[in-house]
Amino acid sequence: MPKNRLEAFSDGIIAFAITLLILEIHIPELGPGVDNGIMLKAIVALLPNFAVYVISFLVCTVWWVSHHTFIHDLHSVDHVLLWANNFFLMFIAFIPFPTGLLGHHPGNPVATAFYGLVCMLAGFAFWLMRWYATLRGGLMKPEIDKTLLRHRVRISFLSPILYLAGAAISLLYPIFALYIYTAIPAYFAFRTLGYGSSKQTLGNPSD
Amino acid sequence: MPKNRLEAFSDGIIAFAITLLILEIHIPELGPGVDNGIMLKAIVALLPNFAVYVISFLVCTVWWVSHHTFIHDLHSVDHVLLWANNFFLMFIAFIPFPTGLLGHHPGNPVATAFYGLVCMLAGFAFWLMRWYATLRGGLMKPEIDKTLLRHRVRISFLSPILYLAGAAISLLYPIFALYIYTAIPAYFAFRTLGYGSSKQTLGNPSD
Amino acid sequence: MPKNRLEAFSDGIIAFAITLLILEIHIPELGPGVDNGIMLKAIVALLPNFAVYVISFLVCTVWWVSHHTFIHDLHSVDHVLLWANNFFLMFIAFIPFPTGLLGHHPGNPVATAFYGLVCMLAGFAFWLMRWYATLRGGLMKPEIDKTLLRHRVRISFLSPILYLAGAAISLLYPIFALYIYTAIPAYFAFRTLGYGSSKQTLGNPSD
Amino acid sequence: MPKNRLEAFSDGIIAFAITLLILEIHIPELGPGVDNGIMLKAIVALLPNFAVYVISFLVCTVWWVSHHTFIHDLHSVDHVLLWANNFFLMFIAFIPFPTGLLGHHPGNPVATAFYGLVCMLAGFAFWLMRWYATLRGGLMKPEIDKTLLRHRVRISFLSPILYLAGAAISLLYPIFALYIYTAIPAYFAFRTLGYGSSKQTLGNPSD
Repeated sequence: MPKNRLEAFSDGIIAFAITLLILEIHIPELGPGVDNGIMLKAIVALLPNFAVYVISFLVCTVWWVSHHTFIHDLHSVDHVLLWANNFFLMFIAFIPFPTGLLGHHPGNPVATAFYGLVCMLAGFAFWLMRWYATLRGGLMKPEIDKTLLRHRVRISFLSPILYLAGAAISLLYPIFALYIYTAIPAYFAFRTLGYGSSKQTLGNPSD
Repeated sequence: MPKNRLEAFSDGIIAFAITLLILEIHIPELGPGVDNGIMLKAIVALLPNFAVYVISFLVCTVWWVSHHTFIHDLHSVDHVLLWANNFFLMFIAFIPFPTGLLGHHPGNPVATAFYGLVCMLAGFAFWLMRWYATLRGGLMKPEIDKTLLRHRVRISFLSPILYLAGAAISLLYPIFALYIYTAIPAYFAFRTLGYGSSKQTLGNPSD
Repeated sequence: MPKNRLEAFSDGIIAFAITLLILEIHIPELGPGVDNGIMLKAIVALLPNFAVYVISFLVCTVWWVSHHTFIHDLHSVDHVLLWANNFFLMFIAFIPFPTGLLGHHPGNPVATAFYGLVCMLAGFAFWLMRWYATLRGGLMKPEIDKTLLRHRVRISFLSPILYLAGAAISLLYPIFALYIYTAIPAYFAFRTLGYGSSKQTLGNPSD
Repeated sequence: MPKNRLEAFSDGIIAFAITLLILEIHIPELGPGVDNGIMLKAIVALLPNFAVYVISFLVCTVWWVSHHTFIHDLHSVDHVLLWANNFFLMFIAFIPFPTGLLGHHPGNPVATAFYGLVCMLAGFAFWLMRWYATLRGGLMKPEIDKTLLRHRVRISFLSPILYLAGAAISLLYPIFALYIYTAIPAYFAFRTLGYGSSKQTLGNPSD
């Protein structure tokens, strides 16, 4: 399987999972002739749903960017990697469910922990894929520095650990756990923003 | 990240968001053996939903065309642009929700204003992306006239301002606001139709 | 806009609309410990939904094939064609709704007529696109015989007329109208099957 | 129709169907202020849904891989193959429904059998496509050994037979049938994993 098919399929599933997030915010049925006050209250009551939507959107787009960068550095694809990737996608496609559960029960410790556990499993699957490609399968581009690649495998193990920590914390301080869940992808997003402002362009028309 | 991956991912999310619009029109459950009169009434009662579907379809396809034109004029992509684009997509993927809310509560001033505010945020994010690429990041193709590019940045700021005006008006005249929401994308669509009839083709097989 | 972007966007919307059809078949909630008889009855009660799913799947895949063939014969794309295509896609993305309505109210004359009217509008939009590209925009490949192209414009007008006839008939004989709705795409599918059995291949790896 | 368009359309539908699986797990509405015990119970009550999600994810990704491998070995596409492929996709896009039905009624013999029958039909359609391309249409790459191709046609007939057997068994031992439904795709997945560990790479950047 050429790299580009693997990437197109993964991009499709990630983009689709992102777009399905909105369906978990159910439209309040307020009946005909509802007045402005009730409508405003109904929208305000959905603020936790909007917040969880934003967090999940951030989580998924960061994984999309990381996935793209990883695939870009791959030299070739074997069947183990293919199935490790499918294992990762299984958790990504699952994210709309804990997103909806948390949005409908904001501040619930168990729902918050469940969200963190699903993200932890996705992060673990991503690490597994990177670990296999780098240290077992020998699938990374040979021109990339081995030390750098091993460093990235280690860094990528941070993500499941932090999500697990967030899930544990959420049982006591669910709101604080949400900040952790946001901080993890935000850290990656801002890190890449740093690259951007140093004028390192990501590609050009002939890339 | 090469331009074409950014575009494919964005196109995917825009196309998915468009297609999800229909799911916000709930099928009336009229029970078995419903007669023609009740069915006809139920369909007529959904006319506001159909109208909002058409407006949102127009809004999203116009953004799809604008997004394509913008990406076409880009020379390269950096991480700031990547995240500005994700910020824009976050609001596009959100549009099915205000579409459903407005369709279920036609004429409600707050639901109409909420719809306008989401479009305003999407328009603002689009302007931000264009502004950064043109005036900060230096990411546009160098052969395109700088004055024209700056003009486009200014024009593109019109969209969030008009949606904000529509949202404000909707608190008093919600139906009139819907005309404004329709007129904004329709203006862009008809403007491009004008290009079309002057026989300026958009591409050919070797493009 | 190059042809291939228009086609990828259209394919995305058509494929997505097709896949959403299944969501309009709601899962019966029979409670825990339901016995086999009730479950079997519940599945049998959904047979009309399954039938409408098959019809809509056929309708949409035939349009996908026709759309592909049409785009293949295009020489270039202008803005009028772009918006005519979006107009067509607006009805395609709408199809899950009448599919669900008809599946939930099998045999209802108005629901059956409504289904036919949506297909008629999609067929009309497709004809409009073909008519514009052939007779107004001059967008078809110049090497294709003009008489053949004009013939195809006329043939393609049959589809909205037949769906309109089906919609009219459905008010008296809704079941018979379903046969018409099935026969229209089946005719096109079998016609292309005829090409296939005459060993005219559709493409090869270098196409 | 070139092979790559057929594959992109099929990949889109398979990826969409996979991602829609999650929507069939409905979010429990437990009201505000729900305590941890009830939330935990609600999540545990969804374990059958999660299990069926995993099975369907596995089923669909294995078909995605098989479909890719099959298309890769095709030399050309004709209209019969195109419609056989659409016939296959009709059952793939249907899978979210039996997945949801089984998840909502775990252990129900009829729901379990229904799941197996849908998979059987998808497997039969896949075999039909392969049989036609190999033995009737002459569409496979001529450089591939004929004996190997005929062997693959026979192997591929195993899948519908095993799903049919699983469906029959499910009427008596529904839980055991679930193991069969899992074992069928798992067998294919592990078989390909075996290829992977023998270092046979699937592609490289120039593929």
